[in-house]
Amino acid sequence: MSLALDAAAQDLLFREARTANTFTDEPVTEEQIQAVYDLVKYGPTAYNLTPLRAVLVRSPEARERLVTHMDEGNKAKTGAAPLAVILAADIEFHEETHRLLPFAPGIKDTVFSERPVREQAAQVNGALQAAYFIVGIRAAGLAAGPMTGFDFAGVQKEFLDDDHTPLMVVNIGKPGPDAWFPRLPRLAYDEVVTTV
Amino acid sequence: MSLALDAAAQDLLFREARTANTFTDEPVTEEQIQAVYDLVKYGPTAYNLTPLRAVLVRSPEARERLVTHMDEGNKAKTGAAPLAVILAADIEFHEETHRLLPFAPGIKDTVFSERPVREQAAQVNGALQAAYFIVGIRAAGLAAGPMTGFDFAGVQKEFLDDDHTPLMVVNIGKPGPDAWFPRLPRLAYDEVVTTV
Repeated sequence: MSLALDAAAQDLLFREARTANTFTDEPVTEEQIQAVYDLVKYGPTAYNLTPLRAVLVRSPEARERLVTHMDEGNKAKTGAAPLAVILAADIEFHEETHRLLPFAPGIKDTVFSERPVREQAAQVNGALQAAYFIVGIRAAGLAAGPMTGFDFAGVQKEFLDDDHTPLMVVNIGKPGPDAWFPRLPRLAYDEVVTTV
Repeated sequence: MSLALDAAAQDLLFREARTANTFTDEPVTEEQIQAVYDLVKYGPTAYNLTPLRAVLVRSPEARERLVTHMDEGNKAKTGAAPLAVILAADIEFHEETHRLLPFAPGIKDTVFSERPVREQAAQVNGALQAAYFIVGIRAAGLAAGPMTGFDFAGVQKEFLDDDHTPLMVVNIGKPGPDAWFPRLPRLAYDEVVTTV
């Protein structure tokens, strides 16, 4: 069964794309990240909430601060990657719904008036957008190294505020030598999909 | 700035892809969904947890039961779509980690021994995989209509169990007449991305 997407694109985005653990020193430019955003911003979210926010950790001083919060096994590669990005979800996304969902501005004061509801929606929809972002990094011909192995409270305190919750840190660049671990197994179709 | 992914693929997956609200009656086959899964199963998750599970609601009787749990505005299109899929997250994903992360089977009894930790990880990583799945549906040349407007507890009770939490329902098919609402605005790059 062939898909509409051509095989080279399938390989680029999924089949040959892998979580990179080493990178070359070729820089990742602002223009590349902007091109990624301008593509993946169209990925769907509930109510068009689009709560994802990103902090590009570029300066050596900021990178050093980020590395101190990473788990031991993630420190070296996060310090060495051409770019490290903190992906976070904005819990106060409802302040933008009058622009993002202009036909239903009232959701700010109804569906999303309570902070715990917003925290939940920010997490789930921020995660959807984080996945689109990873696909977009690969679409740019770059390798992504997403990580959740870090001190979430520490990164939030150091780089964000109480209204922005970290989702993951993603190292980005061209893959370097021995960039990949062996591909891990996946569940079979019949283990994941049932029909009623 | 051009991406490595060709422009036609960019359009197919993001720029011209839209959340469909009507569909033709062309069927969506098991082979198509299997091809989608076999592509997007490679999308990365934390610890390779891959907690996403899917229920294809095919029989008219099951579809009718699903429709009763959808919000008013989602009933007609969910009843009429060639295929409706319940995407859910398996909270007991740690039962598979010995296969999925063979070099660290111990995470089952350490990192993920507590159910609230698993609930959180299932939600976030299930959402990542739901996003890959939506991209995959588009890669198959199909339109997706993801929805969170339904009775989550009702759908869980009717189609799942206590260990599987619904993430969204996705209608799938070829877009029909007037399938799209106008494209909603997106936040500008500078509103989403900051640099330190």
